[in-house]
Amino acid sequence: MTYCVGLLLKQGLVFASDTRTNAGVDQVAISPKMHVFEVKDDRVIVLMTAGNLAITQAVIAHLKAAIESNVAETKHLNNVNSLFEAASLVGAELRAVFERDAEYLKNHNIDFSASILLGGQIKGERPRLFNVYAAGNFIETCAETPYFQIGETKYGKPIIDRVVKYDTDMMDAVKCLLISFDSTIRSNVSVAAPIDLLRYKVDTLHADSYQRITENDAYYLQIRQGWADGLKSVFSSLPNPDWC
Amino acid sequence: MTYCVGLLLKQGLVFASDTRTNAGVDQVAISPKMHVFEVKDDRVIVLMTAGNLAITQAVIAHLKAAIESNVAETKHLNNVNSLFEAASLVGAELRAVFERDAEYLKNHNIDFSASILLGGQIKGERPRLFNVYAAGNFIETCAETPYFQIGETKYGKPIIDRVVKYDTDMMDAVKCLLISFDSTIRSNVSVAAPIDLLRYKVDTLHADSYQRITENDAYYLQIRQGWADGLKSVFSSLPNPDWC
Repeated sequence: MTYCVGLLLKQGLVFASDTRTNAGVDQVAISPKMHVFEVKDDRVIVLMTAGNLAITQAVIAHLKAAIESNVAETKHLNNVNSLFEAASLVGAELRAVFERDAEYLKNHNIDFSASILLGGQIKGERPRLFNVYAAGNFIETCAETPYFQIGETKYGKPIIDRVVKYDTDMMDAVKCLLISFDSTIRSNVSVAAPIDLLRYKVDTLHADSYQRITENDAYYLQIRQGWADGLKSVFSSLPNPDWC
Repeated sequence: MTYCVGLLLKQGLVFASDTRTNAGVDQVAISPKMHVFEVKDDRVIVLMTAGNLAITQAVIAHLKAAIESNVAETKHLNNVNSLFEAASLVGAELRAVFERDAEYLKNHNIDFSASILLGGQIKGERPRLFNVYAAGNFIETCAETPYFQIGETKYGKPIIDRVVKYDTDMMDAVKCLLISFDSTIRSNVSVAAPIDLLRYKVDTLHADSYQRITENDAYYLQIRQGWADGLKSVFSSLPNPDWC
């Protein structure tokens, strides 16, 4: 499993993803799900992937190969004119992998499961955030619902719903995401630290604040402990029913 | 969807279920999922159901018909000798419905989905709690994991994991369940109040504390508001990261 969240805030974008991958319970490994494409002062495009690792790795490999091919007429993430076009490109790569692999996967009763969050900013556009489905179609966030989650989304959703709005301070949002990851990691062994975290500030066109947060990171430990203690104390402070 | 939780505590059992049923978004109705079978001073058996409503209603109807048939040699919930036997009976009814309906459901691409929590006490036994799967097999709780959830389980699981132990006070557990339901109802429109709640105290062999909690219930309102305010205050009290 996987847990990835992308937030679109007034101050910019925040991306967070776990790093655990598993095929059954006896094949658990670390595999980063965050991929950053950057042309400094022109664009930052961040992809986070969930689902079948062979599918999403194939998509990322094709996206990188298109950039490296250096053929003038080839559309790739470093030369598309908009984030919408970038999302279309990712959708097209998913469809290409589907064409190639889906029938074979079906022979082994394996679903074609994949979803990809794509966000960032291209010069001349505002920051944008998309959720690309396995079918290659996609949706975009709006100010009213300024986030997307993929993977194991449910355990960590309530705290995001309670806290994050479009105009939430970016550091408050980071704190909220770490609590959301903690709730998910506690409830699902297939999601685990380290957590890849990237903050992107509007119009910087530079991805300079990437961090990998391990389970022993001092701030993450402080938040986890503080949240656990705080919940217990709120719970105790609420009255029991007076029914007999 | 549905959300049901059963707790096995040192002091007894707590059962809670929502009452919303839906077939798509345009057919939403109230349908209780809690069914109580009682022979005063001899047994209390509580069933809570999730999944395809036609399947679970058929199972409940067959279980009731067996009791009403009043044929001496018929095994039914009012004459089985143990909760294990009761769970077997429920499993057998699920299998009978499967035999009758599954092929027809398949013709309409409908999964045979059903799960049933069964708990209570039969004189001579301790209180027990089982989770019966669609296949008719089942598992029992233990002191180390003293609860089962069925239906839309994930949003409301973290708070139960943090609070409920086998020796948790029953009223603390009730408070925890109402918070768990609130988290679920906020995140999933297919789960909704009123909540059916039944507390069963060890060795009473009588189900006398059933309650239906509406969304305007004074205590439920107090808990929801107190929890929301408390979470916000804990969140604010935690420091933001000092990264620049």
